[in-house]
Amino acid sequence: MKLYSFWRSSTSYRTRIALGLKGLHADNIPVNIVTAEHRGSVYAKINPEMRMPTLIDGEHTLTQSLAIIEYLEEKYPEPPLLPLNIYERARVRALALAVACDISPLNNTSPLLYLSQKLGLTEEQKVEWMRHWISSGFEVLEQLLITSPYTGTFCHGATPGMADCCLVPQLYNARRYHIDLTDFPLITRIDAACAKLPAFIAAHPSNQPDAVK
Amino acid sequence: MKLYSFWRSSTSYRTRIALGLKGLHADNIPVNIVTAEHRGSVYAKINPEMRMPTLIDGEHTLTQSLAIIEYLEEKYPEPPLLPLNIYERARVRALALAVACDISPLNNTSPLLYLSQKLGLTEEQKVEWMRHWISSGFEVLEQLLITSPYTGTFCHGATPGMADCCLVPQLYNARRYHIDLTDFPLITRIDAACAKLPAFIAAHPSNQPDAVK
Repeated sequence: MKLYSFWRSSTSYRTRIALGLKGLHADNIPVNIVTAEHRGSVYAKINPEMRMPTLIDGEHTLTQSLAIIEYLEEKYPEPPLLPLNIYERARVRALALAVACDISPLNNTSPLLYLSQKLGLTEEQKVEWMRHWISSGFEVLEQLLITSPYTGTFCHGATPGMADCCLVPQLYNARRYHIDLTDFPLITRIDAACAKLPAFIAAHPSNQPDAVK
Repeated sequence: MKLYSFWRSSTSYRTRIALGLKGLHADNIPVNIVTAEHRGSVYAKINPEMRMPTLIDGEHTLTQSLAIIEYLEEKYPEPPLLPLNIYERARVRALALAVACDISPLNNTSPLLYLSQKLGLTEEQKVEWMRHWISSGFEVLEQLLITSPYTGTFCHGATPGMADCCLVPQLYNARRYHIDLTDFPLITRIDAACAKLPAFIAAHPSNQPDAVK
């Protein structure tokens, strides 16, 4: 397999974690978002969405991190990233989507460019925008996790899964923007548990070949 | 089952379509987003995310439209909203996510409120923002659909599925903001095919009990 990814992209980071948890290897092909390489003609031919990441598995081209993770789950069921029980699966997916739909899209490169280039926002206003969506999203997640008997060492029980794949990259982003995490003890505790595992360590942005120190 | 939904919310609309395609009935409990009823204490107890929709199935509370649709797919497999083949499933999920992650979140109530209340955008600037994300998202979708041999009468083949559940409400939104759809002949052709089906007709915002004429 080949994974087109960018070291700091949270959707790439999610996918790398899932591959690692499954014990799968994909050759990492860096695409530089900072220089807009993802919008160039070479990458656009591979992925017309011009977004990160893209997984190539044999003849198949796969896009959208959550669709890729579901694909890996179906093709390589062990170890599972979703519980067996139908309702519990829905819970894990809902937690993953609370990050992937309600936080992450607002802080992507394209809305941030729109805010600065079309609306003339200052750097400070952009950072405030990002902090707002991360903090308000984390308030919801902390609440969802605290109130559920299914929350364990990880977002769901004693093994890491799809929700953790989404949560950890979002925390990396939060720290990048110096967001105060003291109000989110459960989220940070789960993140700390993940940080000890080889799959999460190997997937960390700082451990990617294209990382800028 | 009970579905907490708002007539014009695209995530509610998606879920209503999926229920209809499965031939399932859920009592519709309207929640008024315009009066911020979803942020009130009654609804917050039901769904701490304070977002639409929420499906109650017996003792289970389900949130996030795509997690609900996957749940319905697993609990009530017939008729399927995802193909059988693993790669094709990933394709359909990626199309659904291209709407649910890359278009819809930017045009939700909360970012629009932020744009007007915190950043002082005019109504015209907000509409331009919405049009931008819908049009650029549709350009990508049209391209994904045109270049795939799997595209048929619907987003994937000859039967409607998860991607159609997401696409049709986004088109409803696009029309609401008078977006020129002439550049998206395939998307509009699929939308027209969906519009003939009872499940899509019954789920249409104008056919909901809380619809404002």
